[in-house]
Amino acid sequence: VDLLGVLAYTELVAFERLAADAALAPSISDEAALAFMATAEIRHFTRLVERLSDLGVDPWEAMAPFQEPLAEFHSQTAPSDWLESLVKAYVGDGIATDFYREVASLLDDDSRSLVLEVCSDTGHANFAVATVRAAIVADPRLSGRLALWGRRLVGEAMQQAQRVAAERDGLSSLLVGDVDRAGFGLAGLGEMFNRLTEAHTQRMATLGLQA
Amino acid sequence: VDLLGVLAYTELVAFERLAADAALAPSISDEAALAFMATAEIRHFTRLVERLSDLGVDPWEAMAPFQEPLAEFHSQTAPSDWLESLVKAYVGDGIATDFYREVASLLDDDSRSLVLEVCSDTGHANFAVATVRAAIVADPRLSGRLALWGRRLVGEAMQQAQRVAAERDGLSSLLVGDVDRAGFGLAGLGEMFNRLTEAHTQRMATLGLQA
Repeated sequence: VDLLGVLAYTELVAFERLAADAALAPSISDEAALAFMATAEIRHFTRLVERLSDLGVDPWEAMAPFQEPLAEFHSQTAPSDWLESLVKAYVGDGIATDFYREVASLLDDDSRSLVLEVCSDTGHANFAVATVRAAIVADPRLSGRLALWGRRLVGEAMQQAQRVAAERDGLSSLLVGDVDRAGFGLAGLGEMFNRLTEAHTQRMATLGLQA
Repeated sequence: VDLLGVLAYTELVAFERLAADAALAPSISDEAALAFMATAEIRHFTRLVERLSDLGVDPWEAMAPFQEPLAEFHSQTAPSDWLESLVKAYVGDGIATDFYREVASLLDDDSRSLVLEVCSDTGHANFAVATVRAAIVADPRLSGRLALWGRRLVGEAMQQAQRVAAERDGLSSLLVGDVDRAGFGLAGLGEMFNRLTEAHTQRMATLGLQA
C-alpha cells in the first residue's frame, strides 16, 4: 500500500509539474508535446487510485505520507528553463521508474503488473533526448550546466528517498525483507542502488552529459 | 481559423494553469479533482488541433498570435491561493465559454458544433462553487477579497480581448460582420457584451460574491 501510495502521488505531482513546465516551452508545438506527456501521468494516477480502492484502502490516506517529501523534492529542483525541465522529466522520471520496477518484483502479481504497466514508457524519452542533444550541439557550453543539474536532481531524489524509507517502516521492511517475506536483503539493496546508478549514468550519456 | 486558434490555445494554457494550481489544493483529493478538470481541457485542445489540421491550417501558426495576450492575462492574474484559483477557474472559464458560444453562432456548421462541444461543461462549476461557498460561510471576511479578485479577472480578460480584437482583423470582421458575411453588427456586439456581463454577475452571485 505504501508503494502504490507513493507511486500514485508521484504521478499526480509529476503531472502538475510537467503541465506547468509546458509554459516554459519555446514553441507552441513543444508546449503541446509536454502537455500530452503530462496527461499520460494522470491516466496512471487514475489506475493506481482504483487499485488502492480495490484493496479497501483510502487512496488519499495512502498518499498523504509522501506529500511533504515530494513537495520538498520539487521545490528544491524547480527548473529555471525549458532544457532543465526536459532533463528533469527524462532523468527524474527514469530513476523513479527504475526504482518502482525494482520494487515491483517484491509485490503480489496484480500489484506488480499494474506497477510495471504504469512504469511503461510514456514517450518522455525520445522527445527530451532529441531536444536536449540538439540544444547541446547548438551551444556546447550548455553541457556543463545541465550535467550539474542532473547531479543535483539525483542528490535531491536520494535524500528524499532516504527520508521516506526512514519514516515508513512498511516500505523499509518491503525493501529489506522481514520474517514474513523476502526483500532484497541489505546486500541486495546495495546492488539495486548500483543498478539504479548505472542506469542513470547511461541516461545522462544518452543526453550527451557526464553523470 | 482565428477563433479556433485562440480557443485551442486558451484550452492549452488553461490546462497548464489548472494543473499547476492543483498544487495549491489543501488536500490530495482536491488536488486530484483539479488535475482531472485540467485533463478535460487537453481533450478539447486535441479536438481543435485536429479540426485546424482538417481545414488545411498549421495549428501552431493559428495559435501563435494569441500566445502573448494569454500569457499576459495569466501573469497578471496568478492566483495567490487555492480559493483564488477556484474563482479563476469558474469565473474565467465561464466568461471565455460564454464568449466562444456567442461567436460560434457566426461559424459554419462543423466548426460551430465543435466549439459548442468543447465549451460544454467540464465539471469545474459544481466543485468550485461548493468549495468557495463553504469557505465563505466558514470565514465571511473572504467575500470582500474574492469579489475584488473576480472584478480583476474580468478587467484583465476584457483588456486582453480588446487587444486581440484590435490586432486581428479576421476576428473583428467575424464579430462585426463585413460585406461577405453577417456578424453581430456594432449594436449587436454591445448586446452580446451585456449578455456576457449579466452571466458573469450571475456566476459571482452563485459563488456568494458581489460582481
